[in-house]
Parts: sequence; C-alpha cells; structure tokens
Amino acid sequence: MSDNIYQNLTMLGGDTKQPASPEEAVLERVPNPQADVNYAVRFTAPEFTSLCPMTGQPDFAHLVIDYVPGDWLVESKSLKLFLTSFRNHGAFHEDCSVTVARRLIDTLEPRWLRLGGYWYPRGGIPIDIFYQTGEVPAGVWVPDQGVSTYRGRG
Amino acid sequence: MSDNIYQNLTMLGGDTKQPASPEEAVLERVPNPQADVNYAVRFTAPEFTSLCPMTGQPDFAHLVIDYVPGDWLVESKSLKLFLTSFRNHGAFHEDCSVTVARRLIDTLEPRWLRLGGYWYPRGGIPIDIFYQTGEVPAGVWVPDQGVSTYRGRG
Amino acid sequence: MSDNIYQNLTMLGGDTKQPASPEEAVLERVPNPQADVNYAVRFTAPEFTSLCPMTGQPDFAHLVIDYVPGDWLVESKSLKLFLTSFRNHGAFHEDCSVTVARRLIDTLEPRWLRLGGYWYPRGGIPIDIFYQTGEVPAGVWVPDQGVSTYRGRG
Amino acid sequence: MSDNIYQNLTMLGGDTKQPASPEEAVLERVPNPQADVNYAVRFTAPEFTSLCPMTGQPDFAHLVIDYVPGDWLVESKSLKLFLTSFRNHGAFHEDCSVTVARRLIDTLEPRWLRLGGYWYPRGGIPIDIFYQTGEVPAGVWVPDQGVSTYRGRG
Amino acid sequence: MSDNIYQNLTMLGGDTKQPASPEEAVLERVPNPQADVNYAVRFTAPEFTSLCPMTGQPDFAHLVIDYVPGDWLVESKSLKLFLTSFRNHGAFHEDCSVTVARRLIDTLEPRWLRLGGYWYPRGGIPIDIFYQTGEVPAGVWVPDQGVSTYRGRG
Amino acid sequence: MSDNIYQNLTMLGGDTKQPASPEEAVLERVPNPQADVNYAVRFTAPEFTSLCPMTGQPDFAHLVIDYVPGDWLVESKSLKLFLTSFRNHGAFHEDCSVTVARRLIDTLEPRWLRLGGYWYPRGGIPIDIFYQTGEVPAGVWVPDQGVSTYRGRG
Amino acid sequence: MSDNIYQNLTMLGGDTKQPASPEEAVLERVPNPQADVNYAVRFTAPEFTSLCPMTGQPDFAHLVIDYVPGDWLVESKSLKLFLTSFRNHGAFHEDCSVTVARRLIDTLEPRWLRLGGYWYPRGGIPIDIFYQTGEVPAGVWVPDQGVSTYRGRG
Amino acid sequence: MSDNIYQNLTMLGGDTKQPASPEEAVLERVPNPQADVNYAVRFTAPEFTSLCPMTGQPDFAHLVIDYVPGDWLVESKSLKLFLTSFRNHGAFHEDCSVTVARRLIDTLEPRWLRLGGYWYPRGGIPIDIFYQTGEVPAGVWVPDQGVSTYRGRG
Amino acid sequence: MSDNIYQNLTMLGGDTKQPASPEEAVLERVPNPQADVNYAVRFTAPEFTSLCPMTGQPDFAHLVIDYVPGDWLVESKSLKLFLTSFRNHGAFHEDCSVTVARRLIDTLEPRWLRLGGYWYPRGGIPIDIFYQTGEVPAGVWVPDQGVSTYRGRG
Amino acid sequence: MSDNIYQNLTMLGGDTKQPASPEEAVLERVPNPQADVNYAVRFTAPEFTSLCPMTGQPDFAHLVIDYVPGDWLVESKSLKLFLTSFRNHGAFHEDCSVTVARRLIDTLEPRWLRLGGYWYPRGGIPIDIFYQTGEVPAGVWVPDQGVSTYRGRG
Ligand SMILES: [Ca+2]
Ligand SMILES: [Ca+2]
Ligand SMILES: [Ca+2]
Ligand SMILES: [Ca+2]
Ligand SMILES: [Ca+2]
Ligand SMILES: [Ca+2]
Ligand SMILES: [Ca+2]
Ligand SMILES: [Ca+2]
Ligand SMILES: [Ca+2]
Ligand SMILES: [Ca+2]
Ligand SMILES: [Ca+2]
Ligand SMILES: [Ca+2]
Ligand SMILES: [Ca+2]
Ligand SMILES: [Ca+2]
Ligand SMILES: [Ca+2]
Ligand SMILES: [Ca+2]
Repeated sequence: MSDNIYQNLTMLGGDTKQPASPEEAVLERVPNPQADVNYAVRFTAPEFTSLCPMTGQPDFAHLVIDYVPGDWLVESKSLKLFLTSFRNHGAFHEDCSVTVARRLIDTLEPRWLRLGGYWYPRGGIPIDIFYQTGEVPAGVWVPDQGVSTYRGRG
Repeated sequence: MSDNIYQNLTMLGGDTKQPASPEEAVLERVPNPQADVNYAVRFTAPEFTSLCPMTGQPDFAHLVIDYVPGDWLVESKSLKLFLTSFRNHGAFHEDCSVTVARRLIDTLEPRWLRLGGYWYPRGGIPIDIFYQTGEVPAGVWVPDQGVSTYRGRG
Repeated sequence: MSDNIYQNLTMLGGDTKQPASPEEAVLERVPNPQADVNYAVRFTAPEFTSLCPMTGQPDFAHLVIDYVPGDWLVESKSLKLFLTSFRNHGAFHEDCSVTVARRLIDTLEPRWLRLGGYWYPRGGIPIDIFYQTGEVPAGVWVPDQGVSTYRGRG
Repeated sequence: MSDNIYQNLTMLGGDTKQPASPEEAVLERVPNPQADVNYAVRFTAPEFTSLCPMTGQPDFAHLVIDYVPGDWLVESKSLKLFLTSFRNHGAFHEDCSVTVARRLIDTLEPRWLRLGGYWYPRGGIPIDIFYQTGEVPAGVWVPDQGVSTYRGRG
Repeated sequence: MSDNIYQNLTMLGGDTKQPASPEEAVLERVPNPQADVNYAVRFTAPEFTSLCPMTGQPDFAHLVIDYVPGDWLVESKSLKLFLTSFRNHGAFHEDCSVTVARRLIDTLEPRWLRLGGYWYPRGGIPIDIFYQTGEVPAGVWVPDQGVSTYRGRG
Repeated sequence: MSDNIYQNLTMLGGDTKQPASPEEAVLERVPNPQADVNYAVRFTAPEFTSLCPMTGQPDFAHLVIDYVPGDWLVESKSLKLFLTSFRNHGAFHEDCSVTVARRLIDTLEPRWLRLGGYWYPRGGIPIDIFYQTGEVPAGVWVPDQGVSTYRGRG
Repeated sequence: MSDNIYQNLTMLGGDTKQPASPEEAVLERVPNPQADVNYAVRFTAPEFTSLCPMTGQPDFAHLVIDYVPGDWLVESKSLKLFLTSFRNHGAFHEDCSVTVARRLIDTLEPRWLRLGGYWYPRGGIPIDIFYQTGEVPAGVWVPDQGVSTYRGRG
Repeated sequence: MSDNIYQNLTMLGGDTKQPASPEEAVLERVPNPQADVNYAVRFTAPEFTSLCPMTGQPDFAHLVIDYVPGDWLVESKSLKLFLTSFRNHGAFHEDCSVTVARRLIDTLEPRWLRLGGYWYPRGGIPIDIFYQTGEVPAGVWVPDQGVSTYRGRG
Repeated sequence: MSDNIYQNLTMLGGDTKQPASPEEAVLERVPNPQADVNYAVRFTAPEFTSLCPMTGQPDFAHLVIDYVPGDWLVESKSLKLFLTSFRNHGAFHEDCSVTVARRLIDTLEPRWLRLGGYWYPRGGIPIDIFYQTGEVPAGVWVPDQGVSTYRGRG
Repeated sequence: MSDNIYQNLTMLGGDTKQPASPEEAVLERVPNPQADVNYAVRFTAPEFTSLCPMTGQPDFAHLVIDYVPGDWLVESKSLKLFLTSFRNHGAFHEDCSVTVARRLIDTLEPRWLRLGGYWYPRGGIPIDIFYQTGEVPAGVWVPDQGVSTYRGRG
C-alpha cells in the first residue's frame, strides 16, 4: 500500500476552514500510487450550488468529473472544499462548469479530464454542459456518466 | 353491445371547431352502458397547457382524471376539446385544476371524481394538485395515479 | 396433485378452432383443487385487440384480471381463445372491458373478480378501466396491478 | 377565474431582495379561490440547502410539502424565498425539517400539512424526516411522495 | 446470540442428498430466537421450476414467501432443498403454489403466512398466484412483494 | 468570470413581449466566454407545442438541443421565447423540428448542432426527428439524449 | 413552411377504407421538405399484430422504424393503414419484419432504413429482428431504439 | 433552534475508537427538540456487515430504520459506530435484525420503531426481516421503505 | 410469404419427446427466407437451468442469443427443446455457455453469432459469459442485450 | 464437457480458512476449457469492504470484473476468499481497486482485464475507479458494466 502519499497534506483530518470563494480555495494533490498504468477516476458531486450573477438567486447542479491521473491524484477533501467554495459565487452555467474543469486541470495535469454539469431547470429549460480535454486516451475505459436527461413531468 | 349510445353526439367524426375558451367548450355525455355496476374510468392527458395570468407565459401540466360514472360517460372527443380550450386561457395552478374537475362534475354527475394536476416546474418548484369529491365509493377500485414526484436532476 | 381435474375439457391439447366472436367463444372451467382456502389468481394479457365500432380501426389494450376462485378455475387455453375472439369485434373501451369481466363472472362464479383494462392512447388521451365486483374478500391478498399510467413523451 | 387574489402581494413580479435568514423571510399568503372544497397541494423543492451547526459545512435536502388549504394558499415566490433563506442557516436535520413545516402552518393555518425531508447522506447514512399534523382529513386524497429510499451503490 | 438453536439439524454443513420429489423432501425447523415479538421473514426464490403435468415441459416461477414465525423458523437450507424438489414434479400453477405454502404451514405453524407465485408466461399470458392464511396479524408490518406485473414487449 | 457578456441583451430581466410567431421571435446571442475550448451545451425543452397544419389541433413535443458553441452562446431567455413562438404556428413534425435547428444554426454559427424532437403520439404512432449538422467534432463529448422510445401501454 | 406537400394525397382526412392485406395497402409518400440535409425519422408502432401461418393464432409485435429520407417522406396515415393490413395476414417473425422494411424501402427510396421488430414471447422465448440497409450514413445521428430485452418474471 | 442539545455527547467531533463488538458499542441519545409533535425519522444504512455464525464468512445487509422519537433522538455518529460494531460479530439474519432494533428501543424509548433488514442472497435465496413495535401511532406518517424485492437475473 | 420453408420439419406441431441430454437434442434448421440481406435475430431465453457438476445442485441462467443467419434459420421449437435438454446436465458456467453457442454455430453456419449467459449468483457473486464469433459483420445492426448487471440489495 | 479441470484445486468443497489479508489469500486457477476462442467473463461482487487507512473506518464498494481468459480461469471460491481478505485491510480507493485488478492479472495472465470499483460515498462524493489493461481485444464483446452513477437524493 501507499499511505505515505498523504503526508504533506494540510487539510485531511484537521480543522479546515471553509474557503469563501473559488479563488481562496486550495486544491491539493497527492502522488498517484498507480502512475505506471492508465485508469480513470470518477467523482460524483450532486451537492453543487452557486449564485446567478444576474439575480443573485441560487443555482444548483449535479456535477460528474472523470479524469485519467498522471503523476497526481486530487485529494478528495480539498476537492469537496473547492466545490463548496462556489456557494456564494456568481457564475453562469456554461462558464462556471468549464471553470471548475480548468482548475482541476491546472492542479492535476491529468492525462485527460471530462466534466458533466447537469443544472437544475430555470424557466422550464435546464442546461447541461459537457466538457472534456479531447479524445479519451487510447486503451482507457470511461463509461457513460449516465445522468438522465431532464423530462419535465408525467 | 351498446353502440347506439352515441347517436345524439354533435362532435364525433364531424368537423368540430376548436373552442376558443373553456366557456365556449361543450362537454358532451353519453349514457353509461354499464350503469348497473360501479367501475372507474381514467383519462390521462399529458398534453395540457394554459397561460400564467400574471405573465402571459405558457404553463404545462400532466392531468389524470379518474371517475366513477353514474348515468353518464364523458364523450372522449369533447373532453379533448374541452382540455384544449385552456390553451389561451389564463389560470393559476390551484384554481385551474379544480375548475377542470368541477366542469366534469357538473356535466357528468358522477358517483365520484378525482383529478391530479402535475404541473411543470416554475422557479425550480413544481406544484401538484390533488382533488377528489370525497372518499372512493365503497367497493370501487381506483389504483394510484402513479405520476412520479419531481426530482430535479441527478 | 390433482391432474384429473382437466379430464372433461374439450380444448386442451386438441386442434381448437379460433372462435369468430365473443359470442362463439366458450369459456371452460375446471374444479378448483384448493377450494377450501381463499387465494387470488392473476392473468396478465398484454395482447388484447378489438375494433373501434365507429371507425372500424383496431384498438389495443393490456388487460389484467384478478379473481378469487370458488368452485371453479378458468381453463387457461379457453381464456386465451375468449380474449382472442374480440379481434374482429367492435366495442367501446368502457363497455368492452366490463363485458370481459362479466363473462368471466358468469362462467366462474368467483368469490370476487377485478379487471384492469389499460387501453392504448387515441387522440393523445388513453382510457383505463378499473372494475371489481366489490371489496376484496376479508383476509385475501391481492397486490396492486402496477401498470404504469401513460406518460406521453420525455 | 380569480386573479384578483394576488393584488396585495409585495413580492410577485417585483425586485425582491433575498432574505438573509429564515427569521427575515416573509411567507405571504393569498385567499384560497376554491376554499369551499378540500384538495391537496404539493410543492417539490429539490434545491434546499442549509449548514451543519457543528461543522458549518453545507447540508442538502430534497423537500416535499403537501397541504390541504383552508382560507389561504401560500404565495409560491415567497415560499421559494423562505426556503432559500436557510442557505446560511445552521440547523440539524430533524429540527430543521419540522421547523419549515411549522412556519408554513403558522402562516397558512391549513386544514392539514405534511412535510418530507430527504437529506443527502452524511457518514454513509442519510436521514429522512416525515412529519404531518395528524391524519389526512377524511375524504382528501394525498398520494405517496414517492421519493426513493437511499440505496448506496450497485 | 442464539447459535445453539441449530444443534439438532441434519442438513446444515453436511453432504445433503437432493430429494427426488416434494414428498421425499424434509423441511426442518429451528426454534425462533425472538419468539416473544412478532416480525415477518421474507424468502425470495427466483429459481423455482417444476413440470407441466399435461405436456411434461418445464415451468418456471419466481416465488416470494412471507411469514410471521411462532415458535419455529424454517431452516434455510432445507427450504432450498424443498423448493428444488419440485424440479421433476408435475404440477399446475394454482395447485403447486398453494401446496408449497401448505407444506410450510404444516411444518412451521406460523402465526401467518403469505406466498406469491409469479409464473413465466405460457401462451402469452402468465399466471400469478396470491395466497395468505388470512389478514396480516395486528401490528405486524409486511411490505408489498413488489414483483412487477408482466408487461409483454415495448 | 465573464458577466459583462450579457450587457447588450434586450430581453434579460426586462418586460419582454411574447412573440406571436417564429418569424417575429428574435434569437439573441452572447459571446462565448470559453471560446478557446470545445464543449457542448444541452437545452432540454419538454414544453414545446405547435399546431397541426391540417387540422389546427395542438401538437406537443419534447425537444433536446445539443450544440458546440463557436463565438456565440444562445441567450437562454430568447431561446425560450423562440420556442414558445410556435404555440400558434402550424407545422408538420419533420419540417418543424429541422426548422428550429436551422434558426439556431443561423444565429449561433455553432461548430456543431444536434436536435432531437420527440413528438407525442398521433394515431398511436409517435414520430421522432433526429437531426445534426454532421459528425460530432473530434474530441468533443456529447452523451446520448436518452429520451425513451415510446412504448404504448403495459 | 411547406404544407402544400400534401396536396396529392388520397387518404389524409378522408374516409379511408382499411386495406384487407399488405398487398392491398397503398403506402403514400410526400416530398421531403428538408431534402437538402440528412436527418432521421423514427416511427414507433407498438400496436402491430399478424397471424401465425402454422396455427392461425395472433402474433403481436412492437415495431420501431428509423429512416433517413431522400426525396420522400412516408405519409403517416398510409403507414398506419399499411401496418394494420397485417392483421389478417399469416407471417413468420423473421420474414414478416424484413418484409415490412422492404415495402418501405421500395416506396420511399430512403438514404437508409432500419427496422426493429420486438415480438411477444411464444413458448417462453421471444424473437427480436434487427434489420438495416447497411451502415448509418456518415454524419447522421440515430440513437438506440432502446426497447428492453425480454426478462421473464421477477 | 436547539443546538445545545448536543452538549453532553462524548463522540461527536472527537477521536472515537471503533467498538469491537455490539456489546462494547455505546448508543448515545440527545433530547428531541420537537418532542411536542409526532414525526418519524428514517436512517438508511446500506453498509451493514456481520459474520455467519456457522461458517464465519461475511454477510451483508441493507438496513432501514424508522422511528417516532419520544424524548430522545439517537445521535447519528454513535448509531454509525453501533452498526459498524457488528463487523466481527457472528449472527443469524433473523436474530441479528431484531437485536439491532431492540438496542435502539432500549436506548431511545421511542413511541414506535420499525426495522427492515434486506440481506444479500445466500444459496440464491435472500432473507428479508420486517420488524416493528406494533401499529404506526395514530396520525403519524411513515412511507414505505421501498427496497426492491430481490429479482435474480434477467 | 414463405411458409413452405417449414415442410421438412419433424417437431413443429407434433408430439415431440423431450430430449434427455444436449447430446440427444436435435437442432433443426429451415431455409432463411431473406437470405439475400443481412439481418440479426435475437432469442431471449430466461428459463435456462442446468446442474452444477460438483454438487449436483441446479444452476439457473438467463440466455440471450443473437445471430446473423446465412442460409439457415434455427427452428424455434427445436431451439427450445435443445435449451431444455440441459436440465439434467452437469456443466460449469463458462463451459456451458460457450457450448450452447457452438452447437448453434455447427447447425446454422451463421454469418455471425453472439451469446450472453447471465447466471444467477452463487456465493454472492454471479458470473456472466459474453461470447461472439468475432466482429459484428459490417453494416449489420445488433443493439446491446441490455441485461442489468447484478446489484445485490438496496 | 471438461469437469476434470478442477481436480488440483485445494479449496473447492473443503473447509477453507478465511485468509486474514490479501497477502495471505491464494488465488487459484483452472485450465480454460474453451481456450481456443475469445470470450469474456464477468464477476459482480457487490459485497466488497475494506478499511480507510486514515481513520480505520470501513469502506464499501461494488466491484465488477471483466476478463478475457487465456489459458486460465479464476477458480470462483478462491476469488471470493481473495475479495473477502480485504475486510481488515487499509487501502485508498484508487490504489485498492487497481491492486485487486493487478493480482488477478498476475495469476490469470488474461488476454485482457477490466475492473470497475464503485465506492459508497464519503463526504457526499463517491469515487468510482475504471481500470483496464488496454483496448478490448479485437472481435471480443464486453457490454457496459451498467452500474448507475450516484445520484444523491430526490
Ligand atoms: Ca502502488
Ligand atoms: Ca423552472
Ligand atoms: Ca389439492
Ligand atoms: Ca412529459
Ligand atoms: Ca374560484
Ligand atoms: Ca456520505
Ligand atoms: Ca434472542
Ligand atoms: Ca394517439
Ligand atoms: Ca406493450
Ligand atoms: Ca422547408
Ligand atoms: Ca409465452
Ligand atoms: Ca428473472
Ligand atoms: Ca447467492
Ligand atoms: Ca422472402
Ligand atoms: Ca447495494
Ligand atoms: Ca437530486
């Protein structure tokens, strides 16, 4: 096993303060203990919320993040705090979704990353955002995210 | 069989004009060919639309109507035209749903009637309306309408 | 076991001719081998079709029949032929559904019977018929038929 | 129709400021246009979030509210703002869910009210809260809320 | 704990021979370690098969058995062998289902027992059998068996 | 963030009048704040309705639109008004669906666009329309729209 | 719009007689109003029935037809009458399904066509038929038909 | 609010040691902040595991616990530790499920309690246990636990 | 039509004896009436059972067979008898599944064949077998078999 | 058939002791009886549990393993014991999932292997791991694992 990979982390197990904005949030990373092979990691975050920059009212999204790690894994508690840091942040759906992805890319330098942002409906019409850094690397398996399309009622 | 029950109808098979409002719409009825027993009839109308009286924007609903006929059955084409007549009609959800039920009750004098109105979300929060004329008559079977509660995303 | 209960049947295993109408169809019955207790039997017939008496076009229904046998069970092949005999028969949904139930009641003299007729949509609005002979007998268990309400699209 | 029931409202269509806490939030009510009959109204609010009073971290819930109005309906925009006002409010699951119900009861004086609070899992074990003011009034129909029990994975 | 309740069993852990018929099969019972309270036990057996007594061809069923034990629990391995013993046994659906229930009742003398037999379709029409010994005892909870009604195709 | 991209819009937040026809409707666009990468945007519009040009009766559809923006995003309120403008417009299913797609293409000049139109059944047979401007651009991820095929009843 | 494309049709709106066999049925076609682009059209027909040529007993199928029109669209009422014309026609599953497809190909000269025939079980084993004229044309999108595999019971 | 109800707890937020057996585990309780009304609380624990007392091999269960608190609520972290304490404990399904319920009853003295234990299959036949302390108290609402019956394959 | 293709069959309609083993079973074939095109045929057999060669206890599987016929179709009654012939046959899952496929290949000389064997769990871990003769032939459409992965409980 | 392939096994049918750690566990293999063709085998193990190396608290996962055997099959009882051996083993999700795969690869030398690890949520965000040894071998069929993405509540 590889439990020493976590020795330099600042947040795990301690009394971490909730960051007030995405800018304040610190994404931490740990060495990938299986870096000699390609595999994909999925995080499913159904508890994402931000604010509408026009009206200030809350928006909600279900986010699914897939990535193929290179040298680094994201530390999961710092990921949670980073996602939570959008709680008082104003952002449009298209922009916000891609921004989350880009922060992860900057920190992790993954071999590949995909983000699906499934937003709750506004005006009866939800928006979903599908972003990835390009083709899935050859020989890697990433199943469909499988989040249902919005269906209204009935 | 009992096909002569339809002989006095004005709409079936003819060139019926679409009524411009619920007031113009005529609900027709035919004799109940099985009036000596109690049974329930369900109509499912997933294509209902009206207008918001405050903003003029369209509202949509999935309606399910259950009734136990007495002497009369509703003629199905006239029911469709009646429901369609709300297309340019302003109505709040609570009021509109109960109003549809009451028109049917006035016309059919059923032994019992239930209406479920499952409205599409506005502001992220859909409204459902559940109305019935009282307890299901003794010995009658009416299964649940089984329309899913709204679940947002994920 | 009780396999001699089938000895007087005319149809089972033989070359039965398809009856041309419900009137021609013969419902056969066999002695209930467990008549000293109350239990329920469900037949699910998703392949029912008849004709619209107004237009002559085919109608389709999914039928579910529950009954608590008394002295008799319905012989299943004769039930199938009886249901098939509506293929060229004109009938309205409400009337046809209750008629099927009544023929079974006449033949079987059951302690109780329920019929659900779930018709395919016409004009975008399907009709379901729910009939039973009265309250479920005390101490008998009959689960919900569980046929989904029509939901349109999406 | 009954559109004058909304004439005294302060929030509908205007530039409403988001209340900072449940205490600041004002639940508004309008006359029930169908007060002579009993019917039930369901609001489904899958976008509820509050804070854990021990850790300050966000909690999420899916709320479903059913009520049988008496003289008053809740005005839906004020309901939304009231629910949103818990965003920066610390509350335990059991207490918070019942508190939401009680505020609605105080404002609406309904004939009956039910609230289901379906919280997202913490420590792998979600909590659901089921509250109602007593038996459903006689003759009123309220279908199951039908929110799935948490199932883990697989 | 109560592991000595199994000390007199003949089958558990040993080299049990498969019984050739229901008559040869021995249902074993163990003392109910919680006999001072009422609770229900459900066994779900989706691997049941017998033979059609008319044609000799295999029939298949999904069985669900609920019971409220009195002094005895059924020993689960003997239950499995008992159900398997129908593999070469000719039996009609109605009779076979009730017979399984009766053997359990004879052996266990339960406070209450229910059996649902969900048979695979023959001639396009499956048969389900619903048997119980009478009303569920007061204060006992037994959820629906929840086996889907057959739906054909589509 | 990029909230100034909305500064030239005419409709957002104001008192927009509902356009009477698709011709009157104005689709607005805003600069794509993430134009340096390829990503896909999905709008799900389950509240679409138009008129049958032969009979004048309402038709209903569930629309799902996917596109890969180039320099422009569609402004979501103008999209809603555009879709609503078909409410009194006569159109056949095949033609109407492709026409909606083409208006979006003309306005947005996207890198790629796909439209699925899932129409409610007429005569028991629904029509679905699947249109896209060609292959999904290399390296872009667009999950299946996942709208269920119509299944009739049962 | 393009409503004059229907001017030469013989059946639409008139009193069309039901054809007695597939040979008598006339498939009509109308000009494709969007012939300059490739798109797919799906018809879902869950109400198909024919006869078994060996036993004369009814067979049922759920049909899904996808095609990419060239110069012609199928007129939907004539399609319905054509499918209904198999009602008294004897046909094996494999042969019948492909025959339906071939008649459409002959009439429409489509760029591509696919037919899925999902037959109800006989002898406990349903047959599904999957036919297409070859690879989906480059750049065209046709989602999976998504009809569930038969699952028996449980 | 009522956050001081947690002031005497020993485990929350601290470094709690995992108890080695159910006997060592300490269930903690906190005052019910809404004790003047009846409501139900549901815990869903899909991560339960114990050992088979005959073979020593792991067993798994999905547990759902509903209760109507009186003066006390269970503290959720101590509940988790209590459930985890069965990890190395030998227990038969019937006995173990009821034992979990009884410990909660002893600690909480609830107005009512229900436990559903849904065990993973052994020998192809899963066991479910349904226990409650008697009828649901008058006026209290507890929805079905809604855990699917085991279905085998297909 | 092509009903003379069945003229040389020995089993259809006659009194066929159940073969005692796979070796005794005779797979019959009939000429492919649509041999000039490529299409796929799916058989779904949820009623498969064999014996464990180590313990002699019954095993169960849900089989799905897809093939692209060349000159021959399998005769469906002989297929049923062949599958039933495994009832008293000892076979491991991997070996048995591939063996079924190979017998079909030997008899039918199909252009391509695929078999999915979905076995019921033993020891809590089911085995599925996926076999095909190679790539699906170019231009042929075979949808996913869509049998759910085993999910345990919850 | 090929039942002699199991003759050298040490565990099957005997009194196997549960290994205390993955290091102690012995994966056994048997000759592949169908080694001349390529096929895939799926094991679904919804009962996997290990310990968090930071907190010592149990983690749970649903594992699905697909492989294309070469000369060897894994012996299923030894696979079960190997998976169970993680019960008291500390391991992070990413590392543990890939480690399970690698042990199987070392033992079986398969032509290809895929492992999906679907972990229960911690902190509201579950992790899934998707690993395979590279592209699926040409001509081999492996359907999607089809484990649902986590969806939170609602
Ligand atoms: Ca390592
Ligand atoms: Ca909305
Ligand atoms: Ca008897
Ligand atoms: Ca809908
Ligand atoms: Ca009024
Ligand atoms: Ca959690
Ligand atoms: Ca005890
Ligand atoms: Ca229709
Ligand atoms: Ca159907
Ligand atoms: Ca045109
Ligand atoms: Ca059948
Ligand atoms: Ca099954
Ligand atoms: Ca098992
Ligand atoms: Ca031919
Ligand atoms: Ca599970
Ligand atoms: Ca949700």
